[in-house]
Amino acid sequence: MTENILQVIPGGVTAPKGFMASGVAAGLKKNNKVDLALLLSETPAAAAGVYTTNLVQAAPLVLTRQRVAEGLARAVIINAGNANACTGSRGLQDAIASSRAVATALAIPEEQVLVASTGVIGVPLPVEKIVDAVPRAVEALAKENHMAASQAIMTTDLVPKEVAVQVQLGETLVTLGGMAKGSGMIHPNMATMLAFITTDAVISHGVLQQALKQAVDSSFNMITVDGDTSTNDMLLALANGQAGNPEILPETEAYQLFYQGLLEVCSALAKMIARDGEGATRLIEVTVNGALTLQDGQKAARSVAGSNLFKAAVFGKDANWGRILCAVGYSGATFDPSTVDIFIGEVQVAQDGAALEFDEEKAAVMLSQDPVTVLVDLKSGASSATAWGCDLTYDYVRINGSYRT
Amino acid sequence: MTENILQVIPGGVTAPKGFMASGVAAGLKKNNKVDLALLLSETPAAAAGVYTTNLVQAAPLVLTRQRVAEGLARAVIINAGNANACTGSRGLQDAIASSRAVATALAIPEEQVLVASTGVIGVPLPVEKIVDAVPRAVEALAKENHMAASQAIMTTDLVPKEVAVQVQLGETLVTLGGMAKGSGMIHPNMATMLAFITTDAVISHGVLQQALKQAVDSSFNMITVDGDTSTNDMLLALANGQAGNPEILPETEAYQLFYQGLLEVCSALAKMIARDGEGATRLIEVTVNGALTLQDGQKAARSVAGSNLFKAAVFGKDANWGRILCAVGYSGATFDPSTVDIFIGEVQVAQDGAALEFDEEKAAVMLSQDPVTVLVDLKSGASSATAWGCDLTYDYVRINGSYRT
Repeated sequence: MTENILQVIPGGVTAPKGFMASGVAAGLKKNNKVDLALLLSETPAAAAGVYTTNLVQAAPLVLTRQRVAEGLARAVIINAGNANACTGSRGLQDAIASSRAVATALAIPEEQVLVASTGVIGVPLPVEKIVDAVPRAVEALAKENHMAASQAIMTTDLVPKEVAVQVQLGETLVTLGGMAKGSGMIHPNMATMLAFITTDAVISHGVLQQALKQAVDSSFNMITVDGDTSTNDMLLALANGQAGNPEILPETEAYQLFYQGLLEVCSALAKMIARDGEGATRLIEVTVNGALTLQDGQKAARSVAGSNLFKAAVFGKDANWGRILCAVGYSGATFDPSTVDIFIGEVQVAQDGAALEFDEEKAAVMLSQDPVTVLVDLKSGASSATAWGCDLTYDYVRINGSYRT
Repeated sequence: MTENILQVIPGGVTAPKGFMASGVAAGLKKNNKVDLALLLSETPAAAAGVYTTNLVQAAPLVLTRQRVAEGLARAVIINAGNANACTGSRGLQDAIASSRAVATALAIPEEQVLVASTGVIGVPLPVEKIVDAVPRAVEALAKENHMAASQAIMTTDLVPKEVAVQVQLGETLVTLGGMAKGSGMIHPNMATMLAFITTDAVISHGVLQQALKQAVDSSFNMITVDGDTSTNDMLLALANGQAGNPEILPETEAYQLFYQGLLEVCSALAKMIARDGEGATRLIEVTVNGALTLQDGQKAARSVAGSNLFKAAVFGKDANWGRILCAVGYSGATFDPSTVDIFIGEVQVAQDGAALEFDEEKAAVMLSQDPVTVLVDLKSGASSATAWGCDLTYDYVRINGSYRT
């Protein structure tokens, strides 16, 4: 990623032209913390979305998916503290009521309001609290409130997550911004994770959808925290066209440049999520080179990043590389175990599938760094993939042993 | 399982006629603990085996698989403390050397000696320690040393695991015995787990193999501790025919009765392994009823039993049933989320996919029991399956953060 293509800037989801955000306290979280975020585009925006693969899908996701399919959106209302999942037919009514409150307060079409929720599953949404808070959320809408919005969507996250980048498309500077939440139930194929991306680029609903799907496969779908795929995951992208660039069409240089920017936003947010995995102390970055196909590389990288045994070994700074090879072995990737080289940071720990004498102290230093990097060279082909995860710690158990209580 | 079909008896792997065992200290574990087990049949026994699905397979597994395929075995030598996995070409030589030492000391064919190893991966096997200890292991062979053998194969196991049952086949009483180890890296499709089953039944290599495969699918392949599938798993069965029953042929009543006995041995050992999962405080038993197919039921049951989030909730006695439904949702099983009922012990927590008001205190009591039982009724079909797992605790992290050090 060179600087002349891409520039990281401050500003999160409101960095692109024509977007405003707010975060207020609706009383869904304890201690009057902000728990309701509102995101508004001044003009109708092309919308795209990627959703959980879980067969059990939360009510707001069902509603939002329908509305995104229509192609245009103006606003997104997001609450934390309650997932509105497994809440029966009442769940959908509550999601609709949330969107109606926003539509009324902003005088925009109800079908252009998207809804997302995160939090505890199986408890009815206290929708009246949201409806009561919406006028305050509307009043607080401002360019400078991107951080409040990213704080409002946090659950067990320790830090808010936002990023913005700029890409020069010919004469026009296009901006992309994003915010995300998620720290438990993070696993490939869109796990409990909410992410919202904004851009002022001129791009159609369909092309945006294509670019988003492509970017997700190399970013959000390559992170894993605990193997659980949630009922509520979604990634939404809104493009309001206010940058005024010539429309971005597929298979053009402009598309490639825009895609680089989108991938950077997605990758940055995905890594922030993995780094902030529940109880995690360190990000783990696993790169697999020499894979027969991209799919083999992805399977192998995700398997290592997701192995409880290796994650616990990272926490304990124990260079137990056998667990790395073992996880590659059960990943489903095709490879020859007798050609595999493995590096932990700069230390090579295995060659051709067998142990090397290595400096244990130096390996422990590598395992203390953040991120911890692992390189697996399968020497079976020319494909590469990278996956991200985090260590498995006492705090993961503590947090998840008492999430509701 | 009624008493007139099946009787549980003491005696472990040496309960059947014509088997002897021993367990001695070869110096592979610290503190002079027993770490080398020897199992001997007085006469050649029909052999069968089921092995790990991991692409990376340890040297002893490669050797044993070849030898079992020949159909006959006399002895099994098993060491703990070193898995002899990822040890290159030297690994196979070391496994052969172990078997040769046994064959020499017992004056039996080397090809009839099977080898199994468990312990740390990627460290060359100190085979000379095993070769030195084999004469002592041979000398110690006795009917009464079944428990010493089951202790010798332990790694992070807290308790030795053995069982024996008797089945009346017409006029003849047939005995089956078993021992197993395994507490980390336990996951469907034969994870780090060693199990050895003996019987005095008259049954061919091929029919024993068929029965063993069938029993494994409903027992060992339905337990999960941490999702990692090891490089060394194997389950071996030896049938020496000393009971003198008419040969057990497929699709006969005798086969069914023998199979019930075999399944009981496999299920008992599998549950002991899950109960003794690393750091576990309680066994979790997940039954799925009303599945469309057996495969759907198995996927759903294993997914719940394997969910880190639900396992941590059990540890914390938190009736977070949304995580159960969520795990069924991403299991790959086909079902309708809006018809699912869920019970934790006797407490129904969800009906038709939505929350029920339930007594939280009573649910916490159910989550304190051992085993914790979960019933998921998909109401989509007529198939059922049960899976076993354990809670996820601080101790799992502690054990696996410092396994080698």
